[in-house]
Amino acid sequence: MKRGGRAAVVGGGVIGGGWAARFLLHGWDVAVYDPAPEAARMVGEVLDNARRALPTLADCAMPAEGRLTFASSLAEAVRGTKWIQESVPERLDLKHRVITGIQTHAEPDAVIGSSTSGFKPSELQAGAPNPGRVLVAHPFNPVYLIPLVELVPSERSDPEAIDTATDILTGLGMKPLLVRKEIDAHIADRFLEAVWREALWLVRDGIATTEEIDDAIRFGFGLRWAQMGLFETYRVAGGEAGMAHFIAQFGPCLKWPWTRLTDVPELTDELVGTISTQSDAQSGAHSIRELERIRDDNLVGILRALKARDWGAGALLRAHDRRLMANIPSAEPVVESAPQPLEMLTLTVLPAWIDYNGHMSEHRYLQVFGETSDALLRRIGVDADYVATGRSYYTVETHIMHMDEVAAGQGLRTSTQILAVDDKRLHVFHRMRAAADDRLIATAEQMLLHVDAGAGRACAADPTVLARLQPLAAAHSTLAPPDRAGRHVGQRC
Amino acid sequence: MKRGGRAAVVGGGVIGGGWAARFLLHGWDVAVYDPAPEAARMVGEVLDNARRALPTLADCAMPAEGRLTFASSLAEAVRGTKWIQESVPERLDLKHRVITGIQTHAEPDAVIGSSTSGFKPSELQAGAPNPGRVLVAHPFNPVYLIPLVELVPSERSDPEAIDTATDILTGLGMKPLLVRKEIDAHIADRFLEAVWREALWLVRDGIATTEEIDDAIRFGFGLRWAQMGLFETYRVAGGEAGMAHFIAQFGPCLKWPWTRLTDVPELTDELVGTISTQSDAQSGAHSIRELERIRDDNLVGILRALKARDWGAGALLRAHDRRLMANIPSAEPVVESAPQPLEMLTLTVLPAWIDYNGHMSEHRYLQVFGETSDALLRRIGVDADYVATGRSYYTVETHIMHMDEVAAGQGLRTSTQILAVDDKRLHVFHRMRAAADDRLIATAEQMLLHVDAGAGRACAADPTVLARLQPLAAAHSTLAPPDRAGRHVGQRC
Repeated sequence: MKRGGRAAVVGGGVIGGGWAARFLLHGWDVAVYDPAPEAARMVGEVLDNARRALPTLADCAMPAEGRLTFASSLAEAVRGTKWIQESVPERLDLKHRVITGIQTHAEPDAVIGSSTSGFKPSELQAGAPNPGRVLVAHPFNPVYLIPLVELVPSERSDPEAIDTATDILTGLGMKPLLVRKEIDAHIADRFLEAVWREALWLVRDGIATTEEIDDAIRFGFGLRWAQMGLFETYRVAGGEAGMAHFIAQFGPCLKWPWTRLTDVPELTDELVGTISTQSDAQSGAHSIRELERIRDDNLVGILRALKARDWGAGALLRAHDRRLMANIPSAEPVVESAPQPLEMLTLTVLPAWIDYNGHMSEHRYLQVFGETSDALLRRIGVDADYVATGRSYYTVETHIMHMDEVAAGQGLRTSTQILAVDDKRLHVFHRMRAAADDRLIATAEQMLLHVDAGAGRACAADPTVLARLQPLAAAHSTLAPPDRAGRHVGQRC
Repeated sequence: MKRGGRAAVVGGGVIGGGWAARFLLHGWDVAVYDPAPEAARMVGEVLDNARRALPTLADCAMPAEGRLTFASSLAEAVRGTKWIQESVPERLDLKHRVITGIQTHAEPDAVIGSSTSGFKPSELQAGAPNPGRVLVAHPFNPVYLIPLVELVPSERSDPEAIDTATDILTGLGMKPLLVRKEIDAHIADRFLEAVWREALWLVRDGIATTEEIDDAIRFGFGLRWAQMGLFETYRVAGGEAGMAHFIAQFGPCLKWPWTRLTDVPELTDELVGTISTQSDAQSGAHSIRELERIRDDNLVGILRALKARDWGAGALLRAHDRRLMANIPSAEPVVESAPQPLEMLTLTVLPAWIDYNGHMSEHRYLQVFGETSDALLRRIGVDADYVATGRSYYTVETHIMHMDEVAAGQGLRTSTQILAVDDKRLHVFHRMRAAADDRLIATAEQMLLHVDAGAGRACAADPTVLARLQPLAAAHSTLAPPDRAGRHVGQRC
């Protein structure tokens, strides 16, 4: 797997930690600089969360995790890096000092991305030794799961730095949104602020509690906005007559309350206290750590639902998988001197795979075995390009035996033993083991048939496929047949 | 299955059609009144979309669909109904006329829910013959999928009407959010308007296009808001220090741009034209009908992802399943005179179940068969209460054979033949058929073992369970054994 480069993360809070995790889990080495005593702990906690969630978005192997170091000085952190992410507190004088410090020690072509939510890039560039290499790269928490990053250049930013930033951020699985003109708070935070201001009024005036406001969002338009945003949602609501019609129809009635929504509420101690108390009542049953994991599991579920539909952030994940897979060497299968089953997948049991008994749902076993077959197929050259020729292997028969149980978060490994091959048939035996102690969890014996999908009938596999498959089958023919193969349901062991 | 009552829908546009669909698909008879010539077509189109999407959120049978009629007068529509939903255009004089007309002909205890997004209930009640029965019940498009409904009473609303409304809306699978004090635009639309106003500025000033704005939402905070909303998201971001700390930390920097975000942009022809053109460029490749279905598939995916995690709108779906199931008669299994396999599930292949070959993914077959086993278990008394006693049946072995393929949107039926039963073992044979033409798609032979989950070992099933199971097994023992049972993988037919 191709490794990333070397990045520095300056400022190790929740945002800096999220950046470090994105880089590390994409194979970059990361040096963190933050003089705060708790920085290493905070980055470690974010990284733990990220390791648990980010890899479950991909349907292929991620690069080997990069090396995390904590630098004792800014100079040490930034030396030799391609990318430096600045996530220090939102004070312009501090940001100026840090940027000058970075550019004193960094390579001249290193790009500095600032996580600022408030400052324009031209403000950050003022007084910098090398202003053209400074950009705003504003992410969203949790940085390791939310794909959006607002990439904001000023007129002084190097076009080459913008291109490099786009490439690097895309390579981290992010969605860099290039903002055309710099503006206070960029784009997304302007919306968040508008809603925040309105929410403060509603709480202050006793119209709604924090929980009722959250419910008004997550049971309603939040579901729409996770996949279509504002304008496309309204376009659909407006129907065939189009956006101009929608605005004509709804514009006037939307306008009435506008004039009353524009004051700014005072953040008095009383209002802050009200919000705090209501938030405790709403969410206090869960610790922040629990809420983080609930949030991450939800985000993974939503993102994977969109991925299954190849839409929005889910389409981005699919494109990212293609990039990750392009980096996996397309291994000619290596037949080792002592033949043994092929090591196939390494994966983690996801929370959504757990059933009401607290164990992995039975169909998830077949999902893992099916992905094992898919991985074998890719290895013998039956990949997306091959399927595009109208040919594929279909599973015609599966026999699963369960030996033990697994819980969420446990690691699994699968292996494959090839039992028999002819030009149309591929007979395999998969084993699923616990990564921790190697105990056998389940087995699956499968018969796959090579088909011409258009004609809807079996046909011989391509000679290039058979040429990869037959040496594997020959090597495996010397292995003992598995005890659990060739059995019918209920047959005594 | 218990049937709903009788409802009237006055105003048959997209919103009225969505209400009609929610009621009909929950077993209510619905009379629509709308003098517009295209009302029947519009309601029919919304109902088609709803039939395709809403039932895929439930994991149990929905009630039989109610009867839809188009009334030739308001009087005919509202006579004998428990609920009248008013969704006529947003003009107060028109709403007053319609409400008076409704209450002239309706039962005195019928509740009128108004879909108004702009008017307060006290405004709607002015001049009504029976103001206490008028409430705002403001839904969100698509009404058949988005659970939120803002339920807004005024001080004149009958408490009993509010209770009735809560019960009826909950019974439709919705999330009635009781708004404590009436206010212009209720709660959610105030947020939508704040964002809409800000979005208009960004487009007008050339900062971002409609597509960039939608991307800033759906790749970013839209994903967060689909599951946690505003305050809980910030609570998590603020960490262990709590909400007051979050506000102290982020309040000041959020405040800077506030003073510049409060003007109202003029909806000039030029701005409307810009939005229209950008929206065409963004979404014009899809027809509105296609976008509706993409949106619905995405919403189903997001809602089901949250359901798997029992969170937010997904927890609501689980609660709704429990209500739906409580309405299914807990059939003592009926042994018919001529024994035959038990008819189990009727379901539709979801878009997310389709793999890269364009067919249902192999593990989804096992999901359907697994749910078939679960349905059998519920029928013999192994339900959530039984599992809570620490006992359950676990699948130990499965043999699947594939005969044919299915595509998204196709209907499936499953049946179960019991092959053998003892006090611990349950040996079953499931068949999956296409609902349209009854062709056999796949079969699954399964061995289930009754276990004491705590002790982690097999134990005898409860006598009440065996008492339900044994007569079924005895009846099925006279059936011919299935050709495809008792076979190993690769055995010739």
